[in-house]
Amino acid sequence: MHLGTIRTGVGATRAAVREDDDWLLLDAADVGALIAESGWRERVAAARSAGERVPSAAAELAAPILRPAKIVCCGLNYHDHIVETGREIPEYPTLFAKFADTLTDPTADIVIAGSDRVDWEAELAVVIGSRLRYGDRAAAEEAILGYTVANDVSCRDWQSRTLQWFQGKAWDRTTPLGPVVVTADAVSPRDGLDIRCDIDGQTVQRSSTSELVFDAADLVAYVSQFTELGPGDIILTGTPGGVGLGASPPRWLRDGETLTTTIAGIGSLSNTMRLSAHAPQQTREDTA
Amino acid sequence: MHLGTIRTGVGATRAAVREDDDWLLLDAADVGALIAESGWRERVAAARSAGERVPSAAAELAAPILRPAKIVCCGLNYHDHIVETGREIPEYPTLFAKFADTLTDPTADIVIAGSDRVDWEAELAVVIGSRLRYGDRAAAEEAILGYTVANDVSCRDWQSRTLQWFQGKAWDRTTPLGPVVVTADAVSPRDGLDIRCDIDGQTVQRSSTSELVFDAADLVAYVSQFTELGPGDIILTGTPGGVGLGASPPRWLRDGETLTTTIAGIGSLSNTMRLSAHAPQQTREDTA
Repeated sequence: MHLGTIRTGVGATRAAVREDDDWLLLDAADVGALIAESGWRERVAAARSAGERVPSAAAELAAPILRPAKIVCCGLNYHDHIVETGREIPEYPTLFAKFADTLTDPTADIVIAGSDRVDWEAELAVVIGSRLRYGDRAAAEEAILGYTVANDVSCRDWQSRTLQWFQGKAWDRTTPLGPVVVTADAVSPRDGLDIRCDIDGQTVQRSSTSELVFDAADLVAYVSQFTELGPGDIILTGTPGGVGLGASPPRWLRDGETLTTTIAGIGSLSNTMRLSAHAPQQTREDTA
Repeated sequence: MHLGTIRTGVGATRAAVREDDDWLLLDAADVGALIAESGWRERVAAARSAGERVPSAAAELAAPILRPAKIVCCGLNYHDHIVETGREIPEYPTLFAKFADTLTDPTADIVIAGSDRVDWEAELAVVIGSRLRYGDRAAAEEAILGYTVANDVSCRDWQSRTLQWFQGKAWDRTTPLGPVVVTADAVSPRDGLDIRCDIDGQTVQRSSTSELVFDAADLVAYVSQFTELGPGDIILTGTPGGVGLGASPPRWLRDGETLTTTIAGIGSLSNTMRLSAHAPQQTREDTA
């Protein structure tokens, strides 16, 4: 099943399920609101016979989950990337958090004012479907609704100012998410999905999700040891080799470039960068 | 003005304003919901003449903000602590995030199952009152509603597993917050408020909020460069010297000990630790 969130007007969105070349609109504001209710699979089944249809070519997709309560991100998690950097395979996942405001739409421009080292990180994102605390791998697998695509766009100048990465990773509307959530019965990242990042058509990252050190179930089980996960929460699983920071010399995103992030069997994000190194001058009106 | 959130029944809470020995109940579920509406100061004034009263001795206080959208925490931020550890005064604040679920009530037991190195961190917490993006110090000061007390209880074993502190800092219901929000017109941390942490009556941390390297306005302005802050968001400002990790040998919290966290002019948290080194065994019923 492919679930998405469709923009239906200014500030208005609807959850939807894909059927052939159409989206069938559901009675929920986004996929997060949809799956928060226990009977959601029956509602999806009902929409298949009677739902309002939007041709997919006409649909503007939003981030499928608009306001997740928790976004947990993993760093240093691809075998090939770790080996190429000469590091050892880690015993524990390296985790940090983002806010809901950090997310943006799958085709939105990414506007950053105040950084001159903006980098890309193509990532598989896990969408949680049910409550989980103290889960083992089997319970974690049951709690996973499905998968989508993210790009953990990072401001490396801010990220490297201190030991903690957060301030380079939590810029408002800089992590595109989507375009769809593919449910776990329809796609298997463990078996290896091609993951790729392109800048203006040039491939900069390419790997397989089978290279993950801690796979989706590992990460969900681990995080659930310290915090309860629930429907709509998101786990970002880390990025393969090929980021701009690792190039020599380092290579940063430039204003006007388009970042394309693709995972085979799920879909593609396409985001144009709108970058300036300096923050806007604050005026009195801004704070009034 | 002293604002608080009172538990009025099972799962029910009300915002309230303090007047002499009473709390006057307000028409909002917590201080966060109260201040999210622009006319809240008028509603508080109206309650002073006609509001329902609860004697303060009978009031059970909750965390004043129950569901902040953003909690940003600063580490390594007290001059005395940095000097005693031989570090240099940092150029930028070290930041990480917590979730709303990490918060707990000012007198709640703190239950942690799965860590054997639980440590304390007494902290001044800043409560945001209005929207701010790209703020300078002056704008940041205007955006600060007031101050409260927190203890950034940390699982050092998990915190030190990787480079990122988050997994030791985001355990559900481990950061007590409160008991009240004192508005910025009534208290001035810059001028120096005594901050103290006691375990079973023995003082382990004692400093002054005038020792902050980055004060409240600095932190609020800095964070607003990458994310918009809004009413009810919380900034934790870091902890002074005297944590268990810094003792030799290190000294961890023990099951049954009571942690008291006090900032003069604001109030005290009192939390009894309920600790076990191992996570509960998950049963099939837990995931059903």
